[in-house]
Amino acid sequence: MSLTGVGADPRCRCIETESRFMGKLIEKVELFPPSPHCKDTEIIATLKHSGDKICLDTTAPWVKKVIDKILANKKP
Amino acid sequence: MSLTGVGADPRCRCIETESRFMGKLIEKVELFPPSPHCKDTEIIATLKHSGDKICLDTTAPWVKKVIDKILANKKP
Repeated sequence: MSLTGVGADPRCRCIETESRFMGKLIEKVELFPPSPHCKDTEIIATLKHSGDKICLDTTAPWVKKVIDKILANKKP
Repeated sequence: MSLTGVGADPRCRCIETESRFMGKLIEKVELFPPSPHCKDTEIIATLKHSGDKICLDTTAPWVKKVIDKILANKKP
């Protein structure tokens, strides 16, 4: 489990992050900018089919590439 | 209203998009890649305080800048 239980919790959501490539599995990406509740950006991907939510490594190069692809209107 | 009613609806979520800058107001950004249900990427921002969800113009330069800032671990 890489997410804390409650979304509205006033702490960081991610306990650990995934750095392995999983671009093709991504249905949705959520970006949480730094806030008073968590000093670091958090990126949470929801996976196709399973609906699992995975915290992504914000420093993994593939994560930025996948987001750039999505912004360019392409499938990751 | 710029969102369709139901999140799981098998259609595009955004009816219209916002191109005015609202970086400072953003609490969270959701990226939906192209899918069988919607051929274009959709970007939905949740705003601070109000919790309003706004569809962003995926082609607006400030949108890419804000996302790059978030990825760089900075506040938008």
